[in-house]
Amino acid sequence: MAGVLVSQRVADAYGEHILEISRRCSRPLDVVVSGPSAPLSANVCNALEIAFYSRDVWEGCDKTFINPETRAFFTAVDAAPKLRWLQVTSAGADLPIYQPSLERGVRVTTSSGANAEPMAQTVTWAVLSLARATAHWMAGQRRREWSPLISPDLPRDLRGQNAVIIGTGPVGQSIARLLRTLGLNTIGIRRTPAPAEQFDRVTTYERIDDVLPHAQWLVIACPLTETTQGLIDARRIGLLPPDAHVINVARGEILDEAALIDALTQQRLAGAYLDVFAVEPLPTESPLWAMPNVIITPHNCSASAGNSGRGVDIFLHNLENFLSGRPLENEVDRPDTA
Amino acid sequence: MAGVLVSQRVADAYGEHILEISRRCSRPLDVVVSGPSAPLSANVCNALEIAFYSRDVWEGCDKTFINPETRAFFTAVDAAPKLRWLQVTSAGADLPIYQPSLERGVRVTTSSGANAEPMAQTVTWAVLSLARATAHWMAGQRRREWSPLISPDLPRDLRGQNAVIIGTGPVGQSIARLLRTLGLNTIGIRRTPAPAEQFDRVTTYERIDDVLPHAQWLVIACPLTETTQGLIDARRIGLLPPDAHVINVARGEILDEAALIDALTQQRLAGAYLDVFAVEPLPTESPLWAMPNVIITPHNCSASAGNSGRGVDIFLHNLENFLSGRPLENEVDRPDTA
Repeated sequence: MAGVLVSQRVADAYGEHILEISRRCSRPLDVVVSGPSAPLSANVCNALEIAFYSRDVWEGCDKTFINPETRAFFTAVDAAPKLRWLQVTSAGADLPIYQPSLERGVRVTTSSGANAEPMAQTVTWAVLSLARATAHWMAGQRRREWSPLISPDLPRDLRGQNAVIIGTGPVGQSIARLLRTLGLNTIGIRRTPAPAEQFDRVTTYERIDDVLPHAQWLVIACPLTETTQGLIDARRIGLLPPDAHVINVARGEILDEAALIDALTQQRLAGAYLDVFAVEPLPTESPLWAMPNVIITPHNCSASAGNSGRGVDIFLHNLENFLSGRPLENEVDRPDTA
Repeated sequence: MAGVLVSQRVADAYGEHILEISRRCSRPLDVVVSGPSAPLSANVCNALEIAFYSRDVWEGCDKTFINPETRAFFTAVDAAPKLRWLQVTSAGADLPIYQPSLERGVRVTTSSGANAEPMAQTVTWAVLSLARATAHWMAGQRRREWSPLISPDLPRDLRGQNAVIIGTGPVGQSIARLLRTLGLNTIGIRRTPAPAEQFDRVTTYERIDDVLPHAQWLVIACPLTETTQGLIDARRIGLLPPDAHVINVARGEILDEAALIDALTQQRLAGAYLDVFAVEPLPTESPLWAMPNVIITPHNCSASAGNSGRGVDIFLHNLENFLSGRPLENEVDRPDTA
């Protein structure tokens, strides 16, 4: 019988649901629990066809640390010769631990979308923090000082400002939807110039230089790919106007962090909000921690209690697709077909 | 010739525009400039029919301080026997300095709406600050500490929470529009149960006790009137669930501040965002300044460079209405007809 590898927590909460789907599709499945204490036998690994890397297994990992639960999970994944499908908890498929599966032709699907709304809410918080007089107000509160801003020190209206959002997937669209409600014009960057929901205008990666000079907000919300790695380099940062803010909630590798620090130091940019970094955890000695008009969150902008359930929903939906031979949602291009 | 009283700044920037409207309506007007240095002559005061109390005259005033510009302006207003219409810069008409005009039958119009969008944006910032993990993240940034939140410490999803918004005018509607985009259910409180744009549901002041137990967010955004003075008293604060936050961007007199402090201290409420207070400036010794999960701004949540222009737009639009005998926008009920 084909095996589906899941965490203890998923087995406890959704095991029955998984078996019900397998019965409905007349494809009997064995729910196999992954855990760091006891490695799976060769027999069990040989039967694995499906693996669900859920949020609870992932929690605690970062760019430099892989937790024992994740280590055990991918030891089993990589030892499963018949594995055909791996569902992962992240929105991107760029984590090194996924690469062996991708390279040997296992289908990989992401949880893109599960975290989109809380991510967009954190981005909106950061935009409002940087655009309204919040730093002034919060400093006043700490000093118990009543000092309302009056003209000519009033913040600019957000309405009418331009947000260039790189990535028009679920995260980019959620961000565009909220920023649009604040009155910003939303310009999306994607592979093709086809319209995308929530965007006033769309252009391609090839034409990004045309729109950067008009961006008050540059929001990076795309997957890390060959196209996007190093996309926002020193030259492109130089194309932004001095009143621009840079926001990165995608991957540190997309943005030249040293060039960003230079531009902020020389006041060629107004500020930044960063959730992701070249090196994570962000080293204690990074100047970014203490720069004015820079907001730092620890690769955590999506944090919300509902993400885990939304991730499971995507897996269960895809499980039914997989067992019925229907296309999978959020399937990533394999390296050889990209 | 009838006089229209304005500030020097309005006369300089919009004097020609005012005269153009008066010519278009065939109602010649004399633009009279108010200033703190030279009082107006009795002749000039006698001819005043219209007065525009613009944002630049008001700036610097608070509940306990009236600046010289405002003093001079209302000295002229109160000495103008033929004054028929006063346009004010605030969204409410409850300021004591407006009362003599209201009492003697001068028509008063407010600038309600001019500040609505920036106010709603500040409220949205405060909601996101209190609902997302921002206090944790900002404390981490100050300590240069990388500590992502993981379960079970994740913040709750905002989607599906209930916002009870008192006041369904331009400010209440702008707030409802943004909170709805974040996934909140919006319940409006108004005089009549007629539907209001941006609200999922509307109920009346008489029925407010029915909805308070279900509010995760109580937002006060209504005028100060006999109905709303003291509306959110200790008993009604007690009806809110312990996960509720209270937001007041209207007037301090609507909310029992001492009862709010008690509830926050005893953790019968989750937090608050306050822009207005019983006494303004908020006294240094108020415990509110330093309470956890309390955000304070100095009656300044609307601060935005575009408000002044939007206030002038409302005045110019109403000037044409006034000179043509059409109804005025934002006209307030006189005390005797309320």
